[in-house]
Amino acid sequence: MSLIVTGTIGIDTVHTPTDKREQVLGGSCTYFAAAASFFTQVRLVAVVGDDFHADYQAVFKKFPNVDVDGLEVRKGSKTFRWGGKYLEDMNERETLFTELGVVAEKPPTPPAKYADSKFVFLANSHPSVQMAMLESFPKRAIAVADTMNLWIDIARGELLSLLSKVDGLVLNDQESRMLTGKRNPFTAGKMILDLGPTFVVIKKGEHGCVLVHRDGVAALPAYPCEQVVDPTGAGDSFAGGMMGHLAAAHSKDQDIGMPAVQQALAHGTIIASFAIESFSLDRLARLTREEMAKRYTEFQAVVRV
Amino acid sequence: MSLIVTGTIGIDTVHTPTDKREQVLGGSCTYFAAAASFFTQVRLVAVVGDDFHADYQAVFKKFPNVDVDGLEVRKGSKTFRWGGKYLEDMNERETLFTELGVVAEKPPTPPAKYADSKFVFLANSHPSVQMAMLESFPKRAIAVADTMNLWIDIARGELLSLLSKVDGLVLNDQESRMLTGKRNPFTAGKMILDLGPTFVVIKKGEHGCVLVHRDGVAALPAYPCEQVVDPTGAGDSFAGGMMGHLAAAHSKDQDIGMPAVQQALAHGTIIASFAIESFSLDRLARLTREEMAKRYTEFQAVVRV
Repeated sequence: MSLIVTGTIGIDTVHTPTDKREQVLGGSCTYFAAAASFFTQVRLVAVVGDDFHADYQAVFKKFPNVDVDGLEVRKGSKTFRWGGKYLEDMNERETLFTELGVVAEKPPTPPAKYADSKFVFLANSHPSVQMAMLESFPKRAIAVADTMNLWIDIARGELLSLLSKVDGLVLNDQESRMLTGKRNPFTAGKMILDLGPTFVVIKKGEHGCVLVHRDGVAALPAYPCEQVVDPTGAGDSFAGGMMGHLAAAHSKDQDIGMPAVQQALAHGTIIASFAIESFSLDRLARLTREEMAKRYTEFQAVVRV
Repeated sequence: MSLIVTGTIGIDTVHTPTDKREQVLGGSCTYFAAAASFFTQVRLVAVVGDDFHADYQAVFKKFPNVDVDGLEVRKGSKTFRWGGKYLEDMNERETLFTELGVVAEKPPTPPAKYADSKFVFLANSHPSVQMAMLESFPKRAIAVADTMNLWIDIARGELLSLLSKVDGLVLNDQESRMLTGKRNPFTAGKMILDLGPTFVVIKKGEHGCVLVHRDGVAALPAYPCEQVVDPTGAGDSFAGGMMGHLAAAHSKDQDIGMPAVQQALAHGTIIASFAIESFSLDRLARLTREEMAKRYTEFQAVVRV
């Protein structure tokens, strides 16, 4: 089942309490696509500037299932750049800088050959850009969106319009609270279902995730992890693993039933646990399907009741 | 397998953002015993004052599996009293008052007929009192202790001595961090194993729990819950369900292997989810085994991967 992701590619600078990396490949779209590519082919629609040099392009070659024909390199523009610093408690971070660059210009145009995409993931972006992207895929069967606190704050109306059109929403616990005013993730999730989606996934970082689906609720802890190198991209890798698994495992267009989404969450959990073992895409680039399968089996034992 | 609990019985005053109760039955020992009694007979060793009137005594009658022959009513003394106020975010609370009363006097003496107890749970108390209690049960097979931040702060040496003698420790995430200096519960748990226990359970409230056992690790979310009436006693009910299940399900003295403890965690999770649906012991007093079994089955579905 063809999967497509639209969103941001960035050049990241990341400081952790013990280490740092300057100008490494990042962005929601990047982590999502890399993670999803372990399960299925994934098409990527994004725009970068002409500062996006060959070393960055080369990273995508390590993920042969990522189709980068939809990656536009815009002459005279600058790639989105972000810098962040994680505090001693790695659950908290400060933004060092944000240079929007090409993200402040017009969005990329999906190649015509992608118009038949069935599974659409709208990674974090302005909800009106997400809406325009959504409408580029008229043959879609399933659309899922991510969002962030900024859009809940400054573009709530557009976000609500988008929510009425998508099948699923992925967001973190602070965002779900901001969107609904409810602290309890199950209460918040049910309110979000009333806005349109069939399911909502609320990410809680080290505490795992919660699924609120029209057919029931689920909850999973994170994979037990003692050494986090860099949490950047954990949520996007989680979403990539989840959507990749959904797209790969299900032949019927509409199959986003509770059991399918629930199993997909576990695969998202596992791939996210690898993503945070390195800066940038380093760990995912050398990850094998055998390692993934082994950790999935371990995770089944961890949550056995 | 005979289970005994030693600890505190209290008269609680609890304020939540929407309601309050004055002078209701509480205490670590009370919640533990009530929860454990759904799985097995449980012996209770605690001391109260002569202000512990018949209404409080009557609550124990609702849990016929709780043997209260070890409950000492001390003439001229006052029962331990505690008042707490939960904030809007029910994960946070302030202490309104603490009146130690009989808890500041000499500990109760376990009845001679309890000397053959096999499973011993030392609910939160000064570690030197816990140690003295532990030594009252020379035929014990398994001993598990709870503790709190106060003792980690002012009686660390005595607590470390106790840890070298017990098979398991139950504590919350803040306490595990305070005891070890490590924020990560898996890292903290492993450090605690080095102090003696075979397993450590770290409670994370609404985020569930983590088990670090010599034979592996496990993690569970909390049971999905939208309406918490009063979180008081959740941790003690959890421990009671866990120990009650361990004591009931295992005929061999030494069976605290990974699968047994892991399954017991899930039962602790379920009974704690009922305890927080009311003030005091109200919900547990009307809980049926059928309701418990139904929720356990639901929980299995919630964490299915």
